[in-house]
Amino acid sequence: VSAIDRRVAESFPRQGLMTGYGARLVEAGEGRCVIEVEWNNRLTQQHGFFHAGVTTALCDSAAGYAALTTMAEGADVLSVEFKINLMAPADGQRLRAVGEVVRRGRTLVVVRATAFAIKDGRETPCAEFLGTMMTMAKG
Amino acid sequence: VSAIDRRVAESFPRQGLMTGYGARLVEAGEGRCVIEVEWNNRLTQQHGFFHAGVTTALCDSAAGYAALTTMAEGADVLSVEFKINLMAPADGQRLRAVGEVVRRGRTLVVVRATAFAIKDGRETPCAEFLGTMMTMAKG
Amino acid sequence: VSAIDRRVAESFPRQGLMTGYGARLVEAGEGRCVIEVEWNNRLTQQHGFFHAGVTTALCDSAAGYAALTTMAEGADVLSVEFKINLMAPADGQRLRAVGEVVRRGRTLVVVRATAFAIKDGRETPCAEFLGTMMTMAKG
Amino acid sequence: VSAIDRRVAESFPRQGLMTGYGARLVEAGEGRCVIEVEWNNRLTQQHGFFHAGVTTALCDSAAGYAALTTMAEGADVLSVEFKINLMAPADGQRLRAVGEVVRRGRTLVVVRATAFAIKDGRETPCAEFLGTMMTMAKG
Repeated sequence: VSAIDRRVAESFPRQGLMTGYGARLVEAGEGRCVIEVEWNNRLTQQHGFFHAGVTTALCDSAAGYAALTTMAEGADVLSVEFKINLMAPADGQRLRAVGEVVRRGRTLVVVRATAFAIKDGRETPCAEFLGTMMTMAKG
Repeated sequence: VSAIDRRVAESFPRQGLMTGYGARLVEAGEGRCVIEVEWNNRLTQQHGFFHAGVTTALCDSAAGYAALTTMAEGADVLSVEFKINLMAPADGQRLRAVGEVVRRGRTLVVVRATAFAIKDGRETPCAEFLGTMMTMAKG
Repeated sequence: VSAIDRRVAESFPRQGLMTGYGARLVEAGEGRCVIEVEWNNRLTQQHGFFHAGVTTALCDSAAGYAALTTMAEGADVLSVEFKINLMAPADGQRLRAVGEVVRRGRTLVVVRATAFAIKDGRETPCAEFLGTMMTMAKG
Repeated sequence: VSAIDRRVAESFPRQGLMTGYGARLVEAGEGRCVIEVEWNNRLTQQHGFFHAGVTTALCDSAAGYAALTTMAEGADVLSVEFKINLMAPADGQRLRAVGEVVRRGRTLVVVRATAFAIKDGRETPCAEFLGTMMTMAKG
């Protein structure tokens, strides 16, 4: 098991949305972050699959924390914008988002993420995410 | 008060995410849909503002239902992809998403939405959303 | 005829792509910019319509210059990212892009644009664009 | 040298924009396509780098043709939408776009591309592209 970046470990439980979802920080370090959540009926769209909003929130958090692991001590991360393609129904008992840094600039960090629906042990990529994070001096 | 499109009214409570958030369908008809949610500590990012995932989920639902109101009876709506710019912190007691149809094609419907953070009665646009919805024959 | 922002008027002819296209700066001021180009057979995709790359270039330039008109003297503008929905074939004798500022931040400016295909005097919106521009100190 | 997909080879010279740019089809097959163009002063933005519109046009064409190589005989490809992050100035003597299929659906194909600026033999990724292509029955 890889060590989890300290700053991400401290920030994650302060995200009420992630704890409200019951999401779990699986990995965070060196420009990469993995977050998972188990299915429950408060995370669904009208057909019982994970809602696009949940998929997006997981990708945004995983990508943002991936960016944070590459930033200087004392910096904070802010989502500027992102785009997501919902490629397949997020049909599974578990949803996993894997975020990565694509390019690290001084102010802006380009990030990507893929979400996977895990059903009966089989993983299906269900969303592809591309976005921009901003480095902020912590207030 | 405008009447709410029957199909949207039936679908909305089946979205576990929207009911889990405590979100409220305010308006739905003629290519437009408005959804609101009150702040609570399960909807937050690490600074206590509404999480980008909540803003996005509201915009996606408002935009998707705006599209549904323009579709033929018996059709269903699916989010293909979207992009969102988070323009300002979603700092407020309430979040509102206003979705609209930009262009209605046979299969694909282009949609937009704006999210507003409402604080002490003052509305600030906090996100701009542009996406694509697909018309599906209902299963 | 509205006056054209001096900085935009100076920058436009230095964009080899715009002059190569034969594009024309129609309007630029107060957070808005309009650019037009006449059809020619070096601007086409395989069906003879304006290529998505041309539509995008016009929207990007119109949106970027709209942002520039709101920036401090001596600043320069850089495209960070954008997304475009190609809603209808860009079928016409002329293509027009209308760019506008959505929100002006200190570093980042959110912009939008709509492209119109003009055929026999009739305008059809053919693309919707949403993006992010950055303010740069001029070198 | 890998063989170039026949349909792409036939379509490419009919894109007036690509021939007008002097772009070259380098590779096309099995869900992948590579297009290159040499710098000239009709492809530039105001600082003399490749214009974002050129980078986007190359990525769109490479991604669209990547999709076409996976489609049934007689089908045609249409760009629905895309998003691009311009990560670094496109500063070089040559620009290369590498397009790939991410997920192939019945109607919609999710595609990605990366653009590289090549300067004095050194390649720098300068843009990341994510988009949606549509399969069309040929008219």
